[in-house]
Amino acid sequence: MFKSRLMDCAAQVQLHLDSVLVPMGDLPVVQAMRYASHGGKRLRAFLVMESARIHGISDAQSIWPAAAIEAMHAYSLVHDDLPCMDDDDMRRGQPTVHVKWDYATAVLAGDALQTLAFEMVCHPEVSSDPAVRAELALTFARAAGAQGMVLGQALDMAAETADTPLTLAEITHLQEGKTGALFGWSAQAGARMAGADTKPWATYAAGLGLAFQIWDDVLDIEGDAAKVGKTLGKDSAAGKATFVSLLGMDAAKARAQELIDESCAALDPFGEQAETLRDLARFVIARES
Amino acid sequence: MFKSRLMDCAAQVQLHLDSVLVPMGDLPVVQAMRYASHGGKRLRAFLVMESARIHGISDAQSIWPAAAIEAMHAYSLVHDDLPCMDDDDMRRGQPTVHVKWDYATAVLAGDALQTLAFEMVCHPEVSSDPAVRAELALTFARAAGAQGMVLGQALDMAAETADTPLTLAEITHLQEGKTGALFGWSAQAGARMAGADTKPWATYAAGLGLAFQIWDDVLDIEGDAAKVGKTLGKDSAAGKATFVSLLGMDAAKARAQELIDESCAALDPFGEQAETLRDLARFVIARES
Repeated sequence: MFKSRLMDCAAQVQLHLDSVLVPMGDLPVVQAMRYASHGGKRLRAFLVMESARIHGISDAQSIWPAAAIEAMHAYSLVHDDLPCMDDDDMRRGQPTVHVKWDYATAVLAGDALQTLAFEMVCHPEVSSDPAVRAELALTFARAAGAQGMVLGQALDMAAETADTPLTLAEITHLQEGKTGALFGWSAQAGARMAGADTKPWATYAAGLGLAFQIWDDVLDIEGDAAKVGKTLGKDSAAGKATFVSLLGMDAAKARAQELIDESCAALDPFGEQAETLRDLARFVIARES
Repeated sequence: MFKSRLMDCAAQVQLHLDSVLVPMGDLPVVQAMRYASHGGKRLRAFLVMESARIHGISDAQSIWPAAAIEAMHAYSLVHDDLPCMDDDDMRRGQPTVHVKWDYATAVLAGDALQTLAFEMVCHPEVSSDPAVRAELALTFARAAGAQGMVLGQALDMAAETADTPLTLAEITHLQEGKTGALFGWSAQAGARMAGADTKPWATYAAGLGLAFQIWDDVLDIEGDAAKVGKTLGKDSAAGKATFVSLLGMDAAKARAQELIDESCAALDPFGEQAETLRDLARFVIARES
């Protein structure tokens, strides 16, 4: 059920992104945008579409913010992979954009993917209520900017040149920005579109985002590079503090499990309807990539 | 009158950007965002605030989209100046962001300035009508993205590796994206906020944007580097097609004058009220920087 729904969501998102990007022509920057927006598990889009479904919002509406969050995520990956940032050659098992095209095209494609994300999130088809569109756009910007995702990235960069490794509190704060902000926005999108209470969704997403990041650190040590699709062991080799280095492997896994239990409990008000999202939470700390 | 209004607008924009950026802390990326958003003539913000004033919109409202367009413009300059793009060391007479900080900080500060631009354009204080905020955000994204400003930049990059120089039609199309899209959005912002007809403003901005770019090409040949604040003669040295290389200096200046006459005429419906914006148009083809 969960896996088939996730695959269905991923297929819908891909179709939607192509339907928006194909008419934009075939300049290298547009080709790179399409390339960068292909693949991935589409977990953020799934959070948007499933939370929307639970609140009675149609797929025809929720596909817009779902595609928007994936475009935003794709931009962040293209720029994170740049030589001046993490300098990664591979992503999702494929050459990164600056390797396949060039540095300038990667900067520009990332820039345009962010812009496209905003264009989709306030598209008229998202909702007949303009207040919903304006609120989605405003919260989207707050989640992605220098007090959300970019803050996390900036703290990550600062940590690399710091004299001492990050503490657990610092790394938690960093990840709340880097991963948590977009997860939080995605999970609250459905309630926001329906004018419902976003609090249970914020609680659900907080645990999910942190557990997701802990599990990324687990995979960096225990993962199979072929499955993960990128170079592993970079963080530990660089002596960077991670949840695993700070807590130890067993305690890190236990903490992730505890967070996922809290996430699942936050969805109690939605009963059986929310079972696919509880499955998603359990998947996050079982995944191999 | 025009000069004092422009200076007043620039001061308001600076205060507003600082009021938004100062509470965001002093990480290098935030410092770089403040640095990059300082200075400049603020022509785009002036278009927003003056067109808003003519349509009866208060400064307290129009300052938000005015600051937003300047943040968007600032992001585009930070990324255009990167080593992988135009590789410029100086901007507005100061070291560029990647020179003063580093490459990664420049990428990230540009990214966050774009996000901040969207956050400001759909801020609740822009309008009590959410339809206005949603419409401003949507049109803003269309102007800035891969069918607007980024398209212009991508065409510019493609021209650099092309076998033959651009034709006049091609360079006009390029500039309609690169400069025209943001000018067009700015000039239409006031009408959009008031729910009025945007057509006269689109006509005004089309002539203004093209004349602005023709004049940049004139300054690239005849300008004083100390006044312009950046390296001059790069385009002609690189053998790039410009309006001056295609038309000749005299015909380029005559074309700019013709465009400005058309721009001024488009504001006839607004009578004396629009005189500062006619002054702005005349200033664009008289400026020394």
